[in-house]
Amino acid sequence: MKPLGPIPAGFGVTNGELTIGGLAVRALVERAGDTPLFVYSGDLIRQRVATLRSAMPDRLKIHYAVKANPLQSIVQQMDEIVDGFDIASGGELELLRAAGVDLGRVSFAGPGKRDAELELAIAAGAVLNLESESEARRALAIADRVGLTPRLAVRVNPDFELRGSGMKMGGGAKPFGLDAERVPALVRSLIAAGADWHGLHIFAGSQALSAEAIIEAQANTLGLAARLADEIGVPPQHCNMGGGFGIPYFAGDLPLDIDEVGAALAQRFADLPDDLSQTEFCIELGRYLVGEAGVYLTRIVDRKESHGEIYLITDGGLHHQLAASGNFGTVVRRNYPVAIATHFLAAATEEVNVVGCLCTPLDRLADKAFLPRADVGDIVAVFCAGAYGASASPATFLGQGPAREILV
Amino acid sequence: MKPLGPIPAGFGVTNGELTIGGLAVRALVERAGDTPLFVYSGDLIRQRVATLRSAMPDRLKIHYAVKANPLQSIVQQMDEIVDGFDIASGGELELLRAAGVDLGRVSFAGPGKRDAELELAIAAGAVLNLESESEARRALAIADRVGLTPRLAVRVNPDFELRGSGMKMGGGAKPFGLDAERVPALVRSLIAAGADWHGLHIFAGSQALSAEAIIEAQANTLGLAARLADEIGVPPQHCNMGGGFGIPYFAGDLPLDIDEVGAALAQRFADLPDDLSQTEFCIELGRYLVGEAGVYLTRIVDRKESHGEIYLITDGGLHHQLAASGNFGTVVRRNYPVAIATHFLAAATEEVNVVGCLCTPLDRLADKAFLPRADVGDIVAVFCAGAYGASASPATFLGQGPAREILV
Repeated sequence: MKPLGPIPAGFGVTNGELTIGGLAVRALVERAGDTPLFVYSGDLIRQRVATLRSAMPDRLKIHYAVKANPLQSIVQQMDEIVDGFDIASGGELELLRAAGVDLGRVSFAGPGKRDAELELAIAAGAVLNLESESEARRALAIADRVGLTPRLAVRVNPDFELRGSGMKMGGGAKPFGLDAERVPALVRSLIAAGADWHGLHIFAGSQALSAEAIIEAQANTLGLAARLADEIGVPPQHCNMGGGFGIPYFAGDLPLDIDEVGAALAQRFADLPDDLSQTEFCIELGRYLVGEAGVYLTRIVDRKESHGEIYLITDGGLHHQLAASGNFGTVVRRNYPVAIATHFLAAATEEVNVVGCLCTPLDRLADKAFLPRADVGDIVAVFCAGAYGASASPATFLGQGPAREILV
Repeated sequence: MKPLGPIPAGFGVTNGELTIGGLAVRALVERAGDTPLFVYSGDLIRQRVATLRSAMPDRLKIHYAVKANPLQSIVQQMDEIVDGFDIASGGELELLRAAGVDLGRVSFAGPGKRDAELELAIAAGAVLNLESESEARRALAIADRVGLTPRLAVRVNPDFELRGSGMKMGGGAKPFGLDAERVPALVRSLIAAGADWHGLHIFAGSQALSAEAIIEAQANTLGLAARLADEIGVPPQHCNMGGGFGIPYFAGDLPLDIDEVGAALAQRFADLPDDLSQTEFCIELGRYLVGEAGVYLTRIVDRKESHGEIYLITDGGLHHQLAASGNFGTVVRRNYPVAIATHFLAAATEEVNVVGCLCTPLDRLADKAFLPRADVGDIVAVFCAGAYGASASPATFLGQGPAREILV
């Protein structure tokens, strides 16, 4: 038997069926038309943002990292409750435009921005987080050509890392941003060139569950920002402190203590040097805001036994849930939280393997999981499916196509 | 420095530029419109099939596994040179229909076939490779309802594995097929129900480079088929012997010796028991037929240094090349064959990291590779991109979208 990850709070049950936003899964599937289906709870997203705001200092702005889930209805809901958006491509900029977002609230980071993307962002009035001196030169040349003043921030490759993070984005050679010591010269040249210097972007890592590690990274981030502001000689309008807030996916993972993080950050904010006293600070979160609010529902199409093991074969799989299958950024596969949504309160009675419908042994949703008895037609729920699910999986693999998605 | 995989044979060079099918990469990019771009060589695919045919016994039919690359122009070319197609979903069946393929030449395997997919295949006259007794019941009921005689083969979960294969699909509990000992009873019940029993499907694994391992697996496959035919008491019309022929991706990989495989198989065919003497045999290959014929071309949009390391940042990435990035079915990331296509004959002079444009540290195309000097605008080639590239990668991740694809 292998343990399952912890089911997030906020879901209910009615007549033995899992409910999301108060609606039972069979009714949700009927509403959406079919499985496989991603269901996102708008309430859980709103609650998450509200809880986060109450834990963080008022001064801290909250941005949504669109890459976590670019579904238009989610973006539109976010538009009402967050302070800005962070994007990673021209494609995401167009998604925001289509969703009706004010593009002046958007900042664009990403190491391989093409000229066309730079021009799109400059024309839209979005902030560009510059990743290199050469990107800065390209952005200035484009702005000059189109006759606009570009809003330019500089992304810093920090000289520290976010300890225990799933993705380290600082603390050594990296493709992201400029090494810290080269930042002041670039900022001074941007100011000299007449750009609107927006500030700094310092992203040390993502998916950390340790408050202590985040507090340390945020302290280092503020220290680095202060040092750079001092060297530059001009206070930054804005400092994007990155993200890093993780969610529990696996057995033994404990939720991040955001009250502890918020209290420490409030202390740091009370103690800022003069160079940063007028600076606006934000964090950019994606997974933390939407990850636990999403559930992937997939129907069992076969139940079979092989050499004494039971397989529940579903109509979904890694083409929608690459990370849950263990094939995205993980070395050792572990089980996400998975349940039989149509027998949600039933006692677990058997060890089963939940797999997808793809003809490859990579397509696993839960290995040796202890679950209630389930049969053909029952619905499996994979939790923590709100971030990096639908848009981060190879939907066309084996001729399958995308899952349905609804926000309730 | 980390080694690069071996560049496959069959490519050329003109004026220092890599050529594919005789065309230089810049001209190919111009023809396609832009990078990122997959280019597939029709000549290399045809040569591969011809070489394979000459190495294998005449009696062996060659099927194309569409999942490796479902591009319509490739399917249409394959239609002229292979003996059949293997599909893994109703979506792939529709792709073949749209490409004009005779669906009577198609067989459909996959552990999670939905009722609608079974009906589609039965109506089209395709062979269903049944994966369980319950799937058989569903198929018979559907055939009965629509008034057609279904063509049904049974997929066997073999009691042996393909040693050294990248993906083991036999030798223990598996979601694929029926355990061998349950096959005779199912086949007898299919015949009794009036189905057209097509035969057996025995797939032990994929991506093996050892002739010895494939020879052993094929011998075991024929032995198992003979044992099952004997127990069933009716000779199978057809036996799909699976695939398993790998291609070299990584430094130190050596090509599979297909002459050795073919000679051993010819001997086995000369020595078949009576039950299999009239049986038609096939192998189903995807990666082996198209993998080395494809090249992924991506343009360098930034060249930067961080803490002494050089990064070439491209406009492509893991959203088109998930496997090359090391995030699909691999535990330890190794470099695929990668080259600077626009300086193809130049001497390597520097160690660089080739990365994609995505804002994630997972997006790597070559780590610490020793390559010729390359600058913004140069084109990087990732080889072995013909199979499990475009269709097996999360194209919409970070708002990017699919790459272009051309067959030349």
